[in-house]
Amino acid sequence: MPRFASSVSSLRSSEIRDLMSVATAPDIISFSGGMPGNDLFPLDSLDEIYRSLTDKEKQVALQYGPTNGLPSMLESLETYLEKKGFPVKENRLMMTTGSLQAIHILAKAFIDPGDTVLVENPSFIGALSAFRSYEANLVSVPLTDVGIDIEQLKIKLENTRTKPKFLYYCPNFHNPAGIIYSMEVKQQMIELLKDQDIVLIEDDVYSDLYFYEEDVPKMKLIKAMNPEGIDVCFTGSFSKILGPGLRLGWMLVPNHIYRKCELIKQSIDACSPSISQVIADKFVRGGYIYNYTARVRQEYKKRGLAMIEALEKNLPSYVTFEKPRGGFYIWLHLPEGTDATPILQKALEKGVVFVTGKTFDPDGIKNDAMRVSFCNTDEAAIQKGIPLLAEAIREVCG
Amino acid sequence: MPRFASSVSSLRSSEIRDLMSVATAPDIISFSGGMPGNDLFPLDSLDEIYRSLTDKEKQVALQYGPTNGLPSMLESLETYLEKKGFPVKENRLMMTTGSLQAIHILAKAFIDPGDTVLVENPSFIGALSAFRSYEANLVSVPLTDVGIDIEQLKIKLENTRTKPKFLYYCPNFHNPAGIIYSMEVKQQMIELLKDQDIVLIEDDVYSDLYFYEEDVPKMKLIKAMNPEGIDVCFTGSFSKILGPGLRLGWMLVPNHIYRKCELIKQSIDACSPSISQVIADKFVRGGYIYNYTARVRQEYKKRGLAMIEALEKNLPSYVTFEKPRGGFYIWLHLPEGTDATPILQKALEKGVVFVTGKTFDPDGIKNDAMRVSFCNTDEAAIQKGIPLLAEAIREVCG
Repeated sequence: MPRFASSVSSLRSSEIRDLMSVATAPDIISFSGGMPGNDLFPLDSLDEIYRSLTDKEKQVALQYGPTNGLPSMLESLETYLEKKGFPVKENRLMMTTGSLQAIHILAKAFIDPGDTVLVENPSFIGALSAFRSYEANLVSVPLTDVGIDIEQLKIKLENTRTKPKFLYYCPNFHNPAGIIYSMEVKQQMIELLKDQDIVLIEDDVYSDLYFYEEDVPKMKLIKAMNPEGIDVCFTGSFSKILGPGLRLGWMLVPNHIYRKCELIKQSIDACSPSISQVIADKFVRGGYIYNYTARVRQEYKKRGLAMIEALEKNLPSYVTFEKPRGGFYIWLHLPEGTDATPILQKALEKGVVFVTGKTFDPDGIKNDAMRVSFCNTDEAAIQKGIPLLAEAIREVCG
Repeated sequence: MPRFASSVSSLRSSEIRDLMSVATAPDIISFSGGMPGNDLFPLDSLDEIYRSLTDKEKQVALQYGPTNGLPSMLESLETYLEKKGFPVKENRLMMTTGSLQAIHILAKAFIDPGDTVLVENPSFIGALSAFRSYEANLVSVPLTDVGIDIEQLKIKLENTRTKPKFLYYCPNFHNPAGIIYSMEVKQQMIELLKDQDIVLIEDDVYSDLYFYEEDVPKMKLIKAMNPEGIDVCFTGSFSKILGPGLRLGWMLVPNHIYRKCELIKQSIDACSPSISQVIADKFVRGGYIYNYTARVRQEYKKRGLAMIEALEKNLPSYVTFEKPRGGFYIWLHLPEGTDATPILQKALEKGVVFVTGKTFDPDGIKNDAMRVSFCNTDEAAIQKGIPLLAEAIREVCG
């Protein structure tokens, strides 16, 4: 038998993946995935972009590119991010193979086995699995409906055996909790992390998918605030605003961190897909991105509101949730101590699938919550599926 | 200052990357890169494939796929590999984001800090950097013109402090050495590794680029021989037979290794680019791959023979080399102890660039060799550039 590295044992298969095959069966209504709806992809723009490519551009699409990204892609994305208020010039931008790779690279850059890292509870499963793969000691801080629980964060910062290497957080339309961080919580985070040599990883892939224009000001990212005394590593993605199949994300990070990350990326896959970069560059440069995000914002809002309505109509009163104001997800709180797994089994029998709470618990235990996604089901499917889901909950919880 | 992981210090910037910007300057003749010629990409096939895509296929191209690969891609590649004699059914195939990612995943699966791994000297820089990034103890075994030095391998196997986790090797048209392994050497490797719990990583990305049909039988891969008592992890790529910009490679490995690798891949980038897989699937399934490899084989042969001729005509007699019979590279042996770096400086002044030997030395020291590539320069550029290179050598070595 081959002798595996010790870190291999910290890896576990996630329920999301196990559900993937179920969730793509044609007769199942899936509230489990975190992928955009297939029907929403900008195929017309893709065709237009492909038709516009010169032979030289097609050659670039098929050729290796620089590790940090194609110059033209970097230029258009820098302009896009600058318009959104990011301090692009004082940082370095690197294209990554999806934003998960950006998070993985940061994990590799910072984590020695046993190192403490701070994460939210619940948290994004992809990030947890990247951190686990480097044998991090995951210390979790609960979320409130306005962001991380600041008092708990303070306690964890004071009491962890070893100083955390970083805090990983998801500011807007949280995956899975669906919440937006308040400005106040972000200000308090800045105060707590200032001059502490604790990196802040800010993972923002849903911000463009707001339902209400009025929320935009308060969604301002810490990276854009550019606070002194904190190394903020911002990660973003084309997955929700163009297509995850491109595997194209980015990190915007201070130069001294960038240099290490570039070397790590070189050892992982040399460069991000050029073909994706050529397309995404045109998508940004040609302004397609603005029309597209405006369109999907409306569609996800329709789906989100349909789901809120269906949940309010069908759920038993002991299930509570924060109404989403954007993004892909609603996080249902079940009565304390409930085990969501039998609910999932009942739901599967009825032809509906979601993800249980413990999947997003850094400790893999707390299971009295569930994530339902509205991104990949239209209103009709939502109206059909949510009553079935409510039935499953009632059958288990009474 | 952020506190980086200890492994970060083992990473170094490679000369190849430093030369990339020089090598793409328009007035420089580059013998440095390992990329296919831009002029050789199958743009017509790409257009034909894109035009043939249904809306549903375009949606698949923009959507997440399974971690191990799109089912249709796996099916067509399995058929392709089976035709080549690989034991596909007794192994598992996983698509990776370039074959470098496959190697990186294997490195992460097996290497704990300080673990010994066996590599050839010289060896592929990408693999070395992946192994270094997990703090491997690289133990190198010299190459002869028919493969790894078996006597030396035997000595290293007997004398390393700790048993090596794996042996990494490049069987055909070696990068950078340009050689083909003889059947005899491969048989001896099998004997030495049998029942030793030492994994064999067989990295083969150049096999399709042979100049002489008659060489094909002796190029048979150890994975295809399917020897008992050795876990052979085979890695391959579309980079040389379609386009590296797709970032699409694969590993074909025993099931017990596959399971770990899939979890690692999940934590790195979730899945390989769907857009690349949709295109590569059609490229294989539609038979384009056979016409294309037949065409580039002829073109690389022309370039390779032109370079051999130019080298024989211009090089001083103290520089020796094995004539390549395929692939991308020629490895020039300089007089023992020569330092290739001043030669590179002279060459740059003359407008020619190559890669110095030490780049490929696992210890980063031995510099009395140089790699010249003929993949990305046409015959005219070869005929113009090689005399300049020979001049640079003469100016330094006399």
